[in-house]
Amino acid sequence: MTKISEIGEFKLIETLTEKVKLKNSSTIKGIGDDAAVLDYGYKQIVVTTDLLVEGIHFDLIYTPLKHLGYKAVVVNLSDIYAMNAIPKQITVSIAISNKFTVKATEEIYSGIYLACEIYGVDLIGGDTSSSVTGLTINVTALGEVSKEDVVYRNSAKKNDLILVSGDLGSAYFGLLLLEREKEVFKTNPDVQPKFEGYDYILERQLKPEARKDVIAELKKINVKPSSMIDISDGLSSELLHICKASNVGCKIYEEKIPIDASTQNIAEEFSMVASVGALSGGEDYELLFTASIKDFEKLKNNEHFEIIGHIADESEGKIIVTKDGSEVEIIAQGWDGIKE
Amino acid sequence: MTKISEIGEFKLIETLTEKVKLKNSSTIKGIGDDAAVLDYGYKQIVVTTDLLVEGIHFDLIYTPLKHLGYKAVVVNLSDIYAMNAIPKQITVSIAISNKFTVKATEEIYSGIYLACEIYGVDLIGGDTSSSVTGLTINVTALGEVSKEDVVYRNSAKKNDLILVSGDLGSAYFGLLLLEREKEVFKTNPDVQPKFEGYDYILERQLKPEARKDVIAELKKINVKPSSMIDISDGLSSELLHICKASNVGCKIYEEKIPIDASTQNIAEEFSMVASVGALSGGEDYELLFTASIKDFEKLKNNEHFEIIGHIADESEGKIIVTKDGSEVEIIAQGWDGIKE
Repeated sequence: MTKISEIGEFKLIETLTEKVKLKNSSTIKGIGDDAAVLDYGYKQIVVTTDLLVEGIHFDLIYTPLKHLGYKAVVVNLSDIYAMNAIPKQITVSIAISNKFTVKATEEIYSGIYLACEIYGVDLIGGDTSSSVTGLTINVTALGEVSKEDVVYRNSAKKNDLILVSGDLGSAYFGLLLLEREKEVFKTNPDVQPKFEGYDYILERQLKPEARKDVIAELKKINVKPSSMIDISDGLSSELLHICKASNVGCKIYEEKIPIDASTQNIAEEFSMVASVGALSGGEDYELLFTASIKDFEKLKNNEHFEIIGHIADESEGKIIVTKDGSEVEIIAQGWDGIKE
Repeated sequence: MTKISEIGEFKLIETLTEKVKLKNSSTIKGIGDDAAVLDYGYKQIVVTTDLLVEGIHFDLIYTPLKHLGYKAVVVNLSDIYAMNAIPKQITVSIAISNKFTVKATEEIYSGIYLACEIYGVDLIGGDTSSSVTGLTINVTALGEVSKEDVVYRNSAKKNDLILVSGDLGSAYFGLLLLEREKEVFKTNPDVQPKFEGYDYILERQLKPEARKDVIAELKKINVKPSSMIDISDGLSSELLHICKASNVGCKIYEEKIPIDASTQNIAEEFSMVASVGALSGGEDYELLFTASIKDFEKLKNNEHFEIIGHIADESEGKIIVTKDGSEVEIIAQGWDGIKE
């Protein structure tokens, strides 16, 4: 096994990037100069960046390195889609202990390249460095969108429908399961982790996808959301972001929140309420968006998303109607990368 | 002192970014959505990213946090200028132990904002996270340039002049000085560090500048370099990058390498040869560029840069002519972020 300290930065970068093929005509120059060069003509560009830190965002005990690379890209693409834009380029910065093997870094990059392949984005640059301890990955993603199509989070209007794509809470319960089995393993390393039947929630946690298909579907049915955000920190937190930015209130219905059957099952196993995981868990990378009531016919009964409520006047507050009919103020208990 | 763990990520970001004012008309949307939105019309965009890791790239024992923030931005802008482009936007990702105070993070950001102010760039987004240990800063910078003006590193031609801006080696000796005084301090904390008279080399190490003025000067005298790179890892390493990318050789003259008098003095104090610091040290953030011999009259005797040699045929090798007249093959002993 070659330690990365043995080959040095330039050789490592060469090893990791020799397979890069540029896919987008807007990418004039990718890796190999001081900076990448893009040409977008009359399109608008969206830019986002996300940091994944070992011990904070991921645990290498149960996170395969390939999945980690994949996820590091996907969480950024999710932000690009949330602008109603199409991701085109990424840069990747990695700080990694030089005790890691070259093989390990290649594993990370194999996940990065797989995500690039599946989502049609170009890796156009990055930086690679030692770390004193721990692994840190920072991805910056760029995407394009025409002026008319870009969707912000500050433009939800009273009476707009509130929708979410896919289902929520699964990634959170996937994390709880991984943490539980880790504790069991720490107590008794001979016990095999119990992961059978949990494939869906584990995959949602370890290898999430960005909802490229939802953006395509909205285009297909000719609906432009009035506001949109991706759900990375829990539904509550994201909904409050939209309400705050748009100066509106909202009313959503607990029973409308889409939750997969396997998420429901494991929630019961943990003696928890599944919708709490949806509201306050994180890392679903689904899309939360609002749309005019005029688009109701186009949006209803679509397998890609669910109508969960509507935007209200700011004075009406941010309300969730629970299954028993009580109205409760929504508070953000979303995942916080800073608080302990 | 408020610990950052007490206020959480969103409040921290709010605290750190409330003063941001966008300066560039190409910045349609900065912080506050999933991604930033840029509009460049028919310009090309250049993108670069750099990672600074505590214990690898900086030592908080002698690095003021404000300087660190400033430097994290400047090293990226230097890459943008090296494309003959004008930096316009940056994103900043910071992973920081939540034992740091809010005041400390504000110090870092005050340096970031100062650099934004001085170089006319917009902070358009970022990510903030805890770290288990140590501080990591990743900056991504975007800049614009017209198609005709962009300068790559792979287009140096035989007989082109080789030039460097400013002077070299000072940042390296600044680092040696800081490390020396740190060792003295560790042995005897009562001894005050000896920094008088060393202002220039210390500033070059702790608060480097990107050569915006050199790019402006080249435009003013109407010279477009045939290739360009910024000097972050030592002159040898960067020159070899240009030669490799352009499939050429080179011949430079040790006596022509610009070295400041104070750098010369401290090199003697360390019983070292100053030009070794210039060739193999790092972090000068000067520009190394090549230009057609036809531009010689425009380039000679310019206070912004020095002609240090010329591009040769690949078969002639990469040669430095030392002060005693011997010809020596240039090898890269530049700073490597991975090797120990």
